[in-house]
Amino acid sequence: MKASQFFISTLKEAPADAEVVSHQLMMRAGLIKKLGAGIYNYMPMGLRVIRKVEAIVREEMNRAGAVEMTMPVIQPAELWQETGRFDKMGPELLRIKDRHGRDFVVQPTSEEVITDVMRQDIKSYKQLPKNLYQIQTKFRDERRPRFGLMRGREFIMKDAYSFDRDQEAAKASYQVMAAAYRRIFDRFGLTYRAVAADSGAIGGDLSEEFQVIAATGEDAIVYCPGSDYAANMEKAEALAPQSERKAASQAMTKTATPGKATCAEVAELLAIPLETTVKSLVLATDTLDETGKAVKTQVWLLLLRGDHDMNEVKVGKVPGLADFRFATLPEIEEHFGCKPGYLGPLNLQKPVKLVVDREVAALADWVCGANEADFHITGVNWGRDLPEPELVADLRNVVAGDASPDGKGPLAIERGIEVGHVFYLGTKYSKAMNATFLGENGKPQFLEMGCYGIGITRLPAAAIEQNHDAKGIIWPDSIAPFTVVLCPISPDRFPDVKAAADKLYGELLAAGVDVILDDRNERPGAMFADWELIGVPHRVTIGDRALKEGQLEYQHRRDAESSKVDASTALDFLKGKLGLAVAS
Amino acid sequence: MKASQFFISTLKEAPADAEVVSHQLMMRAGLIKKLGAGIYNYMPMGLRVIRKVEAIVREEMNRAGAVEMTMPVIQPAELWQETGRFDKMGPELLRIKDRHGRDFVVQPTSEEVITDVMRQDIKSYKQLPKNLYQIQTKFRDERRPRFGLMRGREFIMKDAYSFDRDQEAAKASYQVMAAAYRRIFDRFGLTYRAVAADSGAIGGDLSEEFQVIAATGEDAIVYCPGSDYAANMEKAEALAPQSERKAASQAMTKTATPGKATCAEVAELLAIPLETTVKSLVLATDTLDETGKAVKTQVWLLLLRGDHDMNEVKVGKVPGLADFRFATLPEIEEHFGCKPGYLGPLNLQKPVKLVVDREVAALADWVCGANEADFHITGVNWGRDLPEPELVADLRNVVAGDASPDGKGPLAIERGIEVGHVFYLGTKYSKAMNATFLGENGKPQFLEMGCYGIGITRLPAAAIEQNHDAKGIIWPDSIAPFTVVLCPISPDRFPDVKAAADKLYGELLAAGVDVILDDRNERPGAMFADWELIGVPHRVTIGDRALKEGQLEYQHRRDAESSKVDASTALDFLKGKLGLAVAS
Repeated sequence: MKASQFFISTLKEAPADAEVVSHQLMMRAGLIKKLGAGIYNYMPMGLRVIRKVEAIVREEMNRAGAVEMTMPVIQPAELWQETGRFDKMGPELLRIKDRHGRDFVVQPTSEEVITDVMRQDIKSYKQLPKNLYQIQTKFRDERRPRFGLMRGREFIMKDAYSFDRDQEAAKASYQVMAAAYRRIFDRFGLTYRAVAADSGAIGGDLSEEFQVIAATGEDAIVYCPGSDYAANMEKAEALAPQSERKAASQAMTKTATPGKATCAEVAELLAIPLETTVKSLVLATDTLDETGKAVKTQVWLLLLRGDHDMNEVKVGKVPGLADFRFATLPEIEEHFGCKPGYLGPLNLQKPVKLVVDREVAALADWVCGANEADFHITGVNWGRDLPEPELVADLRNVVAGDASPDGKGPLAIERGIEVGHVFYLGTKYSKAMNATFLGENGKPQFLEMGCYGIGITRLPAAAIEQNHDAKGIIWPDSIAPFTVVLCPISPDRFPDVKAAADKLYGELLAAGVDVILDDRNERPGAMFADWELIGVPHRVTIGDRALKEGQLEYQHRRDAESSKVDASTALDFLKGKLGLAVAS
Repeated sequence: MKASQFFISTLKEAPADAEVVSHQLMMRAGLIKKLGAGIYNYMPMGLRVIRKVEAIVREEMNRAGAVEMTMPVIQPAELWQETGRFDKMGPELLRIKDRHGRDFVVQPTSEEVITDVMRQDIKSYKQLPKNLYQIQTKFRDERRPRFGLMRGREFIMKDAYSFDRDQEAAKASYQVMAAAYRRIFDRFGLTYRAVAADSGAIGGDLSEEFQVIAATGEDAIVYCPGSDYAANMEKAEALAPQSERKAASQAMTKTATPGKATCAEVAELLAIPLETTVKSLVLATDTLDETGKAVKTQVWLLLLRGDHDMNEVKVGKVPGLADFRFATLPEIEEHFGCKPGYLGPLNLQKPVKLVVDREVAALADWVCGANEADFHITGVNWGRDLPEPELVADLRNVVAGDASPDGKGPLAIERGIEVGHVFYLGTKYSKAMNATFLGENGKPQFLEMGCYGIGITRLPAAAIEQNHDAKGIIWPDSIAPFTVVLCPISPDRFPDVKAAADKLYGELLAAGVDVILDDRNERPGAMFADWELIGVPHRVTIGDRALKEGQLEYQHRRDAESSKVDASTALDFLKGKLGLAVAS
């Protein structure tokens, strides 16, 4: 490609609404152009990156035995009503009406449609397993779209769906996909982790997220540097404390803590470790009648150590708390006789169900609210001041330094950007949509499913968050818009420069290298700034002075300076840099 | 590809709603699966065809200097309001609201968005010309979607847009695209015609449709077998009659024609040539006030020969008739004192504007309605019975045998399916959206535009309408889902058959041939029926008996019978059939 025939459009400044570096650089490098909130044009430079991402995904999906198809963007509501998602999903699901007033949705994913396809086509276990995927435009009407392609409304996703005859086969299909994902992310050339994720109501361990590591990532990733354990924050287990609970050593004492409504403030006031304070979180669950009206409410009190954070997914797994909500102020006052800030398990107005984090259950001489404004209680002990806790569970987020669940040392935490997810679905959709096949025993059975997504347009953003510097983007070779850029200096004045650039350009093209020749006659400074911003990994400068000595200049985007290369061996030199076979 | 790893799903019967052969065969061959009215899943077999169409289009667009990008499917209404299309377009434009109640459309094309992109990016004439294209999902909410992918609601279109500094440059860009389209359609391997089309209000001859010739096509194509003249029916000019009008030879006579309300019935009753009868069509035009209310109405009478059909596009070009409508019954009765069926230009109740087709203006002794039920007038003559017509124009569709406008012989008519369109837009969109650039003179000028579409998902349907037989589809090599299918007979019983099939499969793959090996262990009859239905052009059968004599069987999808090929030379034989280089 010659730059003059391409569409290059760089900006000096990023727009004000670009908050994260990937968004800023994608706008400045002319990869995307905003059309509306969370809706972007993929400009020619950006589309080249997206197409390379797609190509790698497609190759590895095909290699893993998945077959490509395309499902519609606009889908009839009927199928979504069969699974209940048409009503259950929030306003992220863009619902539309056609000219006849019939309901449709713009696909955010396609479980319903693929299940509909398969229930028509799969008659017998002999036709299984099957894995079908698409790379297609999706839409999620995010309340607050932001960060460019990181959290857009319209985006491209690869979604694959596996269909199997039984759980065992489905789990094998899942493992095939998980392995394909590792190959895909290896090929992208990014630093990533496959982390165990929560698999919701289905249970089991068959859910993994693929997280691109970046300090700016929205997700916290928990891993063990001493092993291959890795999980997202929702999933990572906090082990029970290894040491026995100490004996009570303090008397229970009501203590004035005026205006100190947080554990941190109380710990500071009383000069005690934050780890000995206990925070009280009040939840509620409702029993509904047939019309969905709450007819009975149960209030729960969660106790967590003052230095720990509640993990909503773990709390949701406590028996009875699947559909919990936070209690209202009137509910809290009714049961505790006090406003939040000074709550605790002692001196209740009305009984509540107590759920205690493992760490709190192991505490002695702890501090909690007195259920009286501006007062806390110190020296509280289980079995003495209140009964031994009955319902003890892991309710908290792990913190760095916690023991790894695999016993291989302490956990560490880093940030990541989720760009892929593999998930064992079981029969959730096949049961809802009555998608059956005849098993070997001649009886109808529900299809066992898995689903597997990759955020095609999010991936370039994640790659940039991980790989950039003050000058711009630094692409890995695999997904760079161009792998090599040739920058002739003043080719209009120096025919030998033009000739050398044209020759190398032709040779690289013939070798199958994705090269762009900058023939725009820009000044060197502006030209270099453009390509550093755009992030093409390999740059060759062809200047008159060096050329007179038979030399070109090579600079990798990560190199601080350029190095001289013999013009006569430049082709082989570049092939070596790109990992291509060099003719001997 | 091995068939066992692919997704093959053929049907014995087409669904009842599949009216045309391409729809029937695409459903039966498992290329598409219906999701809703006019909305289809592109199944793996169909997607392969679509991808090949896309690849050819992409290659030739790139070769012609166009640059690929992608515009959003869901587009903010604001831009569409700038050009007025948000209100002007009918219910085919799918309008939607997001969660905040803001208006959006699902793109049917993207003139507004690309113009918005370019008005931001193009500052100077030095950046021109530019041509950007996308291959992307589109939606048109057709009132009556039908014929499968031929007239669906969701479809894939390639749309390109050129931007130039002046008309001359824009016309050059148009010609570059028109030439690229010829290469594209040549490569598809289909019989097609590029026909001149009407360019609406813009005028000039810079609008061509690319029509795939098929007896079932919706469009009539006019062409001259003796030259390269071709136009669609809307555009094709009917030349003025070459011979002088004959002298009047009959007296004007009111004649009873009871119950004969059509020209054909009158001609039969009176035993006269249909060509001497004249039909009367009553139109009306309204003068609107500022609120859009009609404040004045003009009634027009169109005269056409009884054997000719009105051409609405030509009528719309008559001065004053740009926004014509058909007159209402009360309007007709008010001006003619008579119901339709017996109308004519004589004995009017109120004056009307007369517009006369060239052929009618050349008639002598003609017949028209008497403006009295059950009566016609015969022997009517211009200049004697009514004044010479003032407003004479080409108002009719041409018919086979009419003289070609280029004077190279008579016209012929065939049917076609429109799959591409190149169109010079001028400044229609750039003016509406104030998309300017600084010209060489330093002054802002409007961008000169062209637009260029190809119906990516319609093309396979058109190809099938043109290429099929009783057994199924017959794909041209270029867009076949697979180019070659290998059919081993009972490979499980005959190891030599399996070995020969596997060997040839490996050799063809290595030669870059898009081959599928049918390893499903189907009976030969069912296997052949599947591949004949699917339409793979080249089939090699590997059977035990022939193989013992060192032979395979080759059959092109168009061949009535198979022919023997030496197994040892089968690879070169197939390469020859596919037009690939054969090693000497």
